[in-house]
Amino acid sequence: MATINDVCKAAGVSKATVSRVLNNSPQVKEVTRNAVLSVMKELGYQPNTLAQALATNTSNSIGLVLPEFQSNYFGSVLHHAGQAALKAGKKLLVIRSKNSAEGERESVETIANQRCDAILLYSRHLSESELVELQQKIAQPLVILNRQLSAESLSSFGLEQTQLATLAMDHLLQLGHKKIACITSPLNSETGRLRLEAYKHQLNAANVSVNKHWIVEGDNSLEGGYKGAQILLQTSEKFSAIFACNDDMAIGAIRALHDHGLRVPQDVSVIGIDNEPAAAYAIPSLSTVSLPIVRLTQDATALALAQANKQGHLISHQSYHGELVARESTQDIRVRSQDI
Amino acid sequence: MATINDVCKAAGVSKATVSRVLNNSPQVKEVTRNAVLSVMKELGYQPNTLAQALATNTSNSIGLVLPEFQSNYFGSVLHHAGQAALKAGKKLLVIRSKNSAEGERESVETIANQRCDAILLYSRHLSESELVELQQKIAQPLVILNRQLSAESLSSFGLEQTQLATLAMDHLLQLGHKKIACITSPLNSETGRLRLEAYKHQLNAANVSVNKHWIVEGDNSLEGGYKGAQILLQTSEKFSAIFACNDDMAIGAIRALHDHGLRVPQDVSVIGIDNEPAAAYAIPSLSTVSLPIVRLTQDATALALAQANKQGHLISHQSYHGELVARESTQDIRVRSQDI
Repeated sequence: MATINDVCKAAGVSKATVSRVLNNSPQVKEVTRNAVLSVMKELGYQPNTLAQALATNTSNSIGLVLPEFQSNYFGSVLHHAGQAALKAGKKLLVIRSKNSAEGERESVETIANQRCDAILLYSRHLSESELVELQQKIAQPLVILNRQLSAESLSSFGLEQTQLATLAMDHLLQLGHKKIACITSPLNSETGRLRLEAYKHQLNAANVSVNKHWIVEGDNSLEGGYKGAQILLQTSEKFSAIFACNDDMAIGAIRALHDHGLRVPQDVSVIGIDNEPAAAYAIPSLSTVSLPIVRLTQDATALALAQANKQGHLISHQSYHGELVARESTQDIRVRSQDI
Repeated sequence: MATINDVCKAAGVSKATVSRVLNNSPQVKEVTRNAVLSVMKELGYQPNTLAQALATNTSNSIGLVLPEFQSNYFGSVLHHAGQAALKAGKKLLVIRSKNSAEGERESVETIANQRCDAILLYSRHLSESELVELQQKIAQPLVILNRQLSAESLSSFGLEQTQLATLAMDHLLQLGHKKIACITSPLNSETGRLRLEAYKHQLNAANVSVNKHWIVEGDNSLEGGYKGAQILLQTSEKFSAIFACNDDMAIGAIRALHDHGLRVPQDVSVIGIDNEPAAAYAIPSLSTVSLPIVRLTQDATALALAQANKQGHLISHQSYHGELVARESTQDIRVRSQDI
């Protein structure tokens, strides 16, 4: 590979001049700059970005910590964070955390150590005070995804989890359902706990007592939804609807009902949360709550980029609402009665 | 944040000693090493990995270039490459390429410039000779995913595309189908072209003429499959089966047939390729060809890691077979005739 000395020789300039060209210094004449760049291109010269990063104290990249990669949901986060970084001329350094508080902390410290200029953390487990403590330990600004926080030292971009779950529950209640089962998201996460609380709260508000046999903990996967519905089907009491706390579990649950000889929505209504692409193409198509995950990711990445560029150390706390998307998998219980 | 000077002062050792500890030099006594590490931990000292990388000429990370992030398929590649890197104590630097030959080249050069120790490129567009040329331009070993190559200067881990598509077509032909339509993958990719060729080849081998109205180009998405089937349904000639070149398009096509009042598999059989998780939970469940993408990714990442660790500059070319997974979406055409 060509070295900086090869470039100097071929362009007939000093090392200092080449360095100024690389750093976009205004001290270089346009004609010299063009000559040097043209020689670099010709020789296939690649500047040593590590050395550059040391000199300018910037890595030109931002870090993203995600708990998993394997789902449409995280694929979307990754895609839109990557696009925003690309547009801003930054690299995106991605790392997967272990699904625990300690895992989140370790991953942030690891990626901070790689010298990225700002860090986006999709957090499920660390408490607000632990996140504040983590921010104190690292030099880069920390932007938290998926949490609603209020700390003054870091930013957060979260979803209104209670509002999302309430929308789904109110849809079922308005359709006349009272016997509503729930397949939860993992309850070691704030998301899981808040959605389950909203389920109970809306039942109570409708004067319906909570039946603990109708609550099964899931893992957000298709298989988890399938198994969750199988467990619910073993209870002696019949339910008329399932609130699955994400779309994959809802689709898995519908398949389990189908295998059990029950029709959706004629026998059981099912609703999810996410509005993932598959929801619209499933048979029956899935009623769900759409999340503005694209906008949330774009906003959070924009803030991280602004902080990476040292455009002030602005702290921002945003939270986003979902919208009901009613499709074929839910139906008024009175229609069902006539049907039978 | 604590500096190396703070560590020296607190541990009562020289900078050179701290540096030796950081580089795992055997010249440091065990008791001194432990004392220095304990001080580092206490002070929360983070070594400057960029400076370390410059000194040791290794970045301790490998690069991965993918054409997209938003699908279960690429989520799986990302997940398993990340896991393998993590186990080996390496970071995974991920970048998305533009979906073109130029995009692939640019992304590899960008990530090479970040000083990772080996680069995995999921390639769709660059020719073998262009890939060889690219390898010559960069210092790191290049490992190509998704292609079957034979060059001596780089490694490749590909799928037997012809075998995969032949399995799917033979399944339909053995079920008595002759009027088989095809929704292709994008034809600007080798994968797309090879799968379409296998479709035509198997029809010819079965003495069935190819009907050009029954070939529609898709884009590998649910929506692409839905629209592709809509176009096929507008042709005057009736087909009895659809070979969709991936699962998402197959699921989209099944929904389009459903919306058109056609039953799968009673009226039309549909098969995909991928065996993505959703295939097993769809209604009807999807017949497909499973790909050993996990093993392929693990093998390719293991080779990249070995090369990054300078364990020889081994070149390897591997290609992987798929397996038929017959489920509910395909049915013998003679059963259908009796049914009607």
